[in-house]
Amino acid sequence: MSNPRAAMLVIGDEILSGRTRDANMYHLAGALTKIGVDLAEVRVVADDAPAIVAAVRALSDNFDVVFTSGGIGPTHDDITADCIAEAFGRSIDVRPDARKLLEDHWRPRGVEITEARLRMARIPEGAVLIDNPVSVAPGFTVENVHVMAGVPSVFEAMVASVLPSLTGGTTLLSESLRIIRPEGDIAGPLRDLAQEYADLSFGSYPFSQNGIYGANVVVRGSEAPRVSEAMTRLAALFPDA
Amino acid sequence: MSNPRAAMLVIGDEILSGRTRDANMYHLAGALTKIGVDLAEVRVVADDAPAIVAAVRALSDNFDVVFTSGGIGPTHDDITADCIAEAFGRSIDVRPDARKLLEDHWRPRGVEITEARLRMARIPEGAVLIDNPVSVAPGFTVENVHVMAGVPSVFEAMVASVLPSLTGGTTLLSESLRIIRPEGDIAGPLRDLAQEYADLSFGSYPFSQNGIYGANVVVRGSEAPRVSEAMTRLAALFPDA
Repeated sequence: MSNPRAAMLVIGDEILSGRTRDANMYHLAGALTKIGVDLAEVRVVADDAPAIVAAVRALSDNFDVVFTSGGIGPTHDDITADCIAEAFGRSIDVRPDARKLLEDHWRPRGVEITEARLRMARIPEGAVLIDNPVSVAPGFTVENVHVMAGVPSVFEAMVASVLPSLTGGTTLLSESLRIIRPEGDIAGPLRDLAQEYADLSFGSYPFSQNGIYGANVVVRGSEAPRVSEAMTRLAALFPDA
Repeated sequence: MSNPRAAMLVIGDEILSGRTRDANMYHLAGALTKIGVDLAEVRVVADDAPAIVAAVRALSDNFDVVFTSGGIGPTHDDITADCIAEAFGRSIDVRPDARKLLEDHWRPRGVEITEARLRMARIPEGAVLIDNPVSVAPGFTVENVHVMAGVPSVFEAMVASVLPSLTGGTTLLSESLRIIRPEGDIAGPLRDLAQEYADLSFGSYPFSQNGIYGANVVVRGSEAPRVSEAMTRLAALFPDA
């Protein structure tokens, strides 16, 4: 049996203008190689609807699985979700469960839920949401296309959520904890915990916001009680964070 | 008048396997942005003839100018030149002027001109050669497609050779000097010379070979006497290198 063949579509002007050097392609290529999926083609297109729609259709038709990165944020040039809907002839609207994810995350933080932010809850009809342990706004899967954020830490977290479904392995469950500590303080205790729970995977996705440094730590595993147990231990390690 | 629209085709398995992080796309994107050419799409494909031929045709048809990187070396998986010939329905063979470039470079160095090395002189019918000041084996241009090496220092030197033809500006002439000194020793004197000859452009492309460190320094300008004068001055700065 030959390996599944994957393609990637990078959406956005940052790389084409030379402002940003690619990181997501490099990350995905390495992650797919590790699990025996061949990344066979990558395309990079601008924030241009006809170009995105044409590329999504071509790649979805020609490859087993497609990953997109970029264009699912709150600004007017974030048009990926609408383009995916168009490419597959599906309707798109703000979806209640996605909206609730955003509201539950932002309300306690006093963040106003503007119309722009609500764009991030626009999901094509029939899509499956992809967990975003870093900044909550979800990615989504339509047919064989996984639609993910362009910010590298979010992209990487979403890739980790999606990859288990590719290998035919058991689907992984995840829980995440937001820890307000510099990642350097988290690393040591987290490594010890990961050694103790060798059957689980531990990911740390650092952030800084308004001068506050922290990380979203994600625990993944196939058995819910194990994941919960490890998460309880993790929380106990950082009681006031 | 809107900007010319460019595309890039990156050929080779290194980036798709995650072994190498892209550098050429980043370089070209920045270089094109500076001269007002829009890089509108990039594709990355493996060393796979049908994929290369299809991508070359699609990009050549849809964009004003196309740059390719990779697959023009001496090994069996370097199939770019043959694919370009096929994409445009042209014949391909070892071309005498390209062969002479290689022989003139290698003979004095005692390098055997093997059949494998001669692959680098295979040029599609009617192509225009692109200067390679770093390692001599030329790139080439067929119709609106510029075919360049994947090694970043060579790619960058070829981009510098090709870009002036895009802007409608005067064509630049170049001379190069191979200096056997670490680039750190070259940098200071070269900067001073570049300031004195502000009408010329100076590029330095470092290499290391068998433990020897050096750089190919390329001087470009629109007037041949000026370029020669600067080259004479440059050579005098490194008399025994």
